[in-house]
Amino acid sequence: MANLRESDKKMSVAKKMLDLGKQSSVIREIFEYGLKRKAEIGAENVFDFSLGNPSVPAPPQLNDIIKQLIDSVPAEKLHGYTSAPGDQSVREAVADYIQETFRFPATAELIYMTCGAASGLAICLNALTTQDDEVIVFAPFFPEYRIYVEHSNAKLIIVPCNEHDFQPDLAGLEQAITANTKAIIVNSPNNPTGTCYREDTIQKLAEILKQKQLEFKKPIYILSDGPYRELIYDIELPYLPHYYDNTIIIYSYSKSISLAGARIGYIFVSPLAENANDLFVAICGAGRSLGYVCAPSLFQFLIKECIGMTADLSIYKKNRDILYNGLKDLGFTAVYPSGAFYLFVKSPIQDAEKFCELAKKYELLLVPSDSFGYAGFVRIAYCVSTEQIINSLPAFKQLAKEYNLLP
Amino acid sequence: MANLRESDKKMSVAKKMLDLGKQSSVIREIFEYGLKRKAEIGAENVFDFSLGNPSVPAPPQLNDIIKQLIDSVPAEKLHGYTSAPGDQSVREAVADYIQETFRFPATAELIYMTCGAASGLAICLNALTTQDDEVIVFAPFFPEYRIYVEHSNAKLIIVPCNEHDFQPDLAGLEQAITANTKAIIVNSPNNPTGTCYREDTIQKLAEILKQKQLEFKKPIYILSDGPYRELIYDIELPYLPHYYDNTIIIYSYSKSISLAGARIGYIFVSPLAENANDLFVAICGAGRSLGYVCAPSLFQFLIKECIGMTADLSIYKKNRDILYNGLKDLGFTAVYPSGAFYLFVKSPIQDAEKFCELAKKYELLLVPSDSFGYAGFVRIAYCVSTEQIINSLPAFKQLAKEYNLLP
Repeated sequence: MANLRESDKKMSVAKKMLDLGKQSSVIREIFEYGLKRKAEIGAENVFDFSLGNPSVPAPPQLNDIIKQLIDSVPAEKLHGYTSAPGDQSVREAVADYIQETFRFPATAELIYMTCGAASGLAICLNALTTQDDEVIVFAPFFPEYRIYVEHSNAKLIIVPCNEHDFQPDLAGLEQAITANTKAIIVNSPNNPTGTCYREDTIQKLAEILKQKQLEFKKPIYILSDGPYRELIYDIELPYLPHYYDNTIIIYSYSKSISLAGARIGYIFVSPLAENANDLFVAICGAGRSLGYVCAPSLFQFLIKECIGMTADLSIYKKNRDILYNGLKDLGFTAVYPSGAFYLFVKSPIQDAEKFCELAKKYELLLVPSDSFGYAGFVRIAYCVSTEQIINSLPAFKQLAKEYNLLP
Repeated sequence: MANLRESDKKMSVAKKMLDLGKQSSVIREIFEYGLKRKAEIGAENVFDFSLGNPSVPAPPQLNDIIKQLIDSVPAEKLHGYTSAPGDQSVREAVADYIQETFRFPATAELIYMTCGAASGLAICLNALTTQDDEVIVFAPFFPEYRIYVEHSNAKLIIVPCNEHDFQPDLAGLEQAITANTKAIIVNSPNNPTGTCYREDTIQKLAEILKQKQLEFKKPIYILSDGPYRELIYDIELPYLPHYYDNTIIIYSYSKSISLAGARIGYIFVSPLAENANDLFVAICGAGRSLGYVCAPSLFQFLIKECIGMTADLSIYKKNRDILYNGLKDLGFTAVYPSGAFYLFVKSPIQDAEKFCELAKKYELLLVPSDSFGYAGFVRIAYCVSTEQIINSLPAFKQLAKEYNLLP
């Protein structure tokens, strides 16, 4: 094909997808730098806080349950297709768990098993939105939200959080809602800030949405992206469907039982949602369109057996306490993290990217908040060994000295 | 929300997805009827040939390997995220397998591990196509092709097969290719006909595409959807990348090792393809857009250990022989199936749906070819027990009598 012109060549693939594939993830770049650096000076000398990858292993019982499933369930079933929304008994187990844990009426008929939260979000957005629709996120936000929203042909609308507590700016939200608003993504506990939305935040948010639904005479859905649900410290986390009818829960077992690679989670449509059944049918249609035949069957059956179990999440709390207090003592300002495994620290200079570059001098690998659509902060993923956190504090002290932060 | 008008309510979800979710699959409907009927008269009295679900269990060694992986690989790795295109060592194992088995140069850098062939197809179509692009399929064809093509915003163009041998009508293909043709889906061994494309078919098809590429000064890709690759009888199957450079292999381990529920397969971009690297990058972008974070990690590692293994596929060959010969003796006309586990039988009357209705009188559950974009045939999925096939022959005899087919 030597006779193809350059301009023709460029059109051989979808440009949007090519750009997206090329778009280097800042987080991934820092992680790769860390790997290189570890090879150079030894892993114990690099303080890599870049990736939100569970450091606590899956509970050992999970592996025992997998073995038991293998020994007791015929292979045709264990490794066979389930129906598209999931095996009926698994969906019933998830519904029962929601009923018992959150005292909220859930039925298997509104549970759709997914390949993790990412697929759940992509599916829900495709089920809901068409051109001209708008989806609101609160900044800072997980960068893949933009990709899923834009792939579903909707427009991403960004409303910043209040900087003093990183709760959503509700006045800003009120102004941002238009006749085109289809959905709002709520992520609490939050990546990257580690905050959880307080009950009064949720109540006010629900009030605003209810008013706007009346004003625009159309439903506005909350997509509650909650993979960090069980990673909470010192607080209780409101269950959104109690506060707002048009809620869709998107959940993943990636963090609670450290099964990130298994790709297993669920979508739960509140039975109180407007047209809940149609919505569920559209979710099935969207799942089909995106090539999801069913969630991995072995892991569906595993979830049924281990529902409610968690990995040893106390390690994250311990890490949080050491890191938050340690940095505070060094003069850093950080958002108090009540959930997830992220600490959001104010950059001592306006340019957080420059700050992260300088931190590398002390082998500290931090992620600038610009990656999350927000300036002036860094994200520290403390899903690492407690030892790494303790050992990193002298390096943070050096860094603090650079900016005269020490009290 | 009682004050919403009906017209408003209808717009609360994406209509296209709602329709798709509602669109009852004819195959699924027949299967559900079968379940009901089995409950009424006993499973042994219903001859359900509706679903293409592997009836041969996964090889028992697979379960042993899963147990070994659990015992030997740390949970953080076994159940952790892999990189988006897959674990590097797994991609290398797949590349090595392709090199050894097909004597074709494959590199890990052009292998992308997927959640089965469905996700592979959806990802490739999204990576390649934009509005106005056309994708050609040969009828009869797997009905989900339309859904994946249309979701990627491209237009589905249908070229029928020759009815005498169900090889693609190459003159028809030549006419169907336009300046907008982006890709052609090739599915051999074929669902629903059970045919395999002969080497001379592939050679001629490649010739036509090469000419058209020159004529339109643009690449045209073959998407080779090959989950039935190992289910071949009496023949050798040409490996498409040897014949045509712009080939993308989409593979799944659903049938060869009966791991349909595990959702594991791969995309392999021929290194000889136009802009192979860009194409691969666009595939990564599309995977990201559709919410695929990585293929299930445990099954990636499993594939590395059991690559080249197959389930006991001889059972399908035995079934084929008994069924094909049995129906031929009864006066039915069927396409000679050299692969997959489907027999495509000519309906004795023009209206295949009516024929399938009548077949139910004898508890025979067959799928009309209309579901596959083709009239006048029925698909019999012989991935059932050999016993069911033997026991069904008297029922087929009764059916043959209805149409005076008996010789």
